[in-house]
Amino acid sequence: MRALVERIQAEGRNLGGGILKVDGFVNHQLDPMLTMDMGRAFANAFARRGVAGITKIITAEVSGIAPALTTAMVLDVPMIYARKTRPITMPEGYYSAQAPSHTKGGIVDLIVSPEYLTTDDRVLLIDDFLATGKTIAALVTLVAQCGATLCGIGCIIEKTFEGGRTHLAHLGVPIVSLAAITSMEGDEIVVANPAGTEAEP
Amino acid sequence: MRALVERIQAEGRNLGGGILKVDGFVNHQLDPMLTMDMGRAFANAFARRGVAGITKIITAEVSGIAPALTTAMVLDVPMIYARKTRPITMPEGYYSAQAPSHTKGGIVDLIVSPEYLTTDDRVLLIDDFLATGKTIAALVTLVAQCGATLCGIGCIIEKTFEGGRTHLAHLGVPIVSLAAITSMEGDEIVVANPAGTEAEP
Repeated sequence: MRALVERIQAEGRNLGGGILKVDGFVNHQLDPMLTMDMGRAFANAFARRGVAGITKIITAEVSGIAPALTTAMVLDVPMIYARKTRPITMPEGYYSAQAPSHTKGGIVDLIVSPEYLTTDDRVLLIDDFLATGKTIAALVTLVAQCGATLCGIGCIIEKTFEGGRTHLAHLGVPIVSLAAITSMEGDEIVVANPAGTEAEP
Repeated sequence: MRALVERIQAEGRNLGGGILKVDGFVNHQLDPMLTMDMGRAFANAFARRGVAGITKIITAEVSGIAPALTTAMVLDVPMIYARKTRPITMPEGYYSAQAPSHTKGGIVDLIVSPEYLTTDDRVLLIDDFLATGKTIAALVTLVAQCGATLCGIGCIIEKTFEGGRTHLAHLGVPIVSLAAITSMEGDEIVVANPAGTEAEP
């Protein structure tokens, strides 16, 4: 997605240790038009790969919510965000899976209620980053626990050098990233624009 | 907002102790069209009250993100979500304020970086619930710490019997709720439709 790649080139900061700062448009402040275009880009990219009949979008709180919502808007289907803390409103019988915490260190639980995800659902999984793939793998586990069918995985930014795509390949579903960081040596950010990921069809 | 009031009447559950379950369209699953209409309803309601020249929307993670984003879409301004944990990408010099945690009990920090909110900004504050007003008061503190100007407060659902509106009245800004729960005695949910809160102008 050209507009996203340009934004990363203009504003992204390499903080070292593989940490990419994109707080101005992903992790703290959001540009609503760019975020809407991410939703359009995901919908177009999955359609091009033959993914059809999606009934739900799933993501994890916090930074996945915005791109998952705009994708859900374009596809006109509900969006579910896995919780990291069980809300007092969630009944027993929920599913949980563990993922590493990016901000706190350690392990975080991701929690989904089967009230909203069932065996009839065909699901797209959307998140902000694809790095090692462990957060996405936890969401995949939750989709499976609910008996729903995973149809595709989309992330805003992939760090290709962390191996997540390889780790998720056995799932046999299309994996779409809208921008691919191929190297973060020194202060450098090398970012590629994956083919077929524009907001306009 | 009639569509929201009807949704609460159809799907909302009174779990006792003043706890309203709206996980199907606010706190776990989202209806993208309803969420977009919330953004339109907020924009219309504040315009009717003479609020103009907004430059930023602020909310708190997690459940405020979706309605804040759709409001930001309608007004075409950036949206900032206060973090509950400082991301490793956030530099020193950030602001924080404390609010009670709804899901964990105890106190949670809300954190904003002054990189994205400055003295030039005119801010709308959007959140999911207005109950005691303490989370919103923490966000108001963050806006003030950044030197920005608070112009209005919007929440999806107000629980009028918890007194938050009175607590925030000294701020002298319009407070808009899209649905007002006036009583939750027994199993009952009494919900009013505040005037001037439709998605269509």
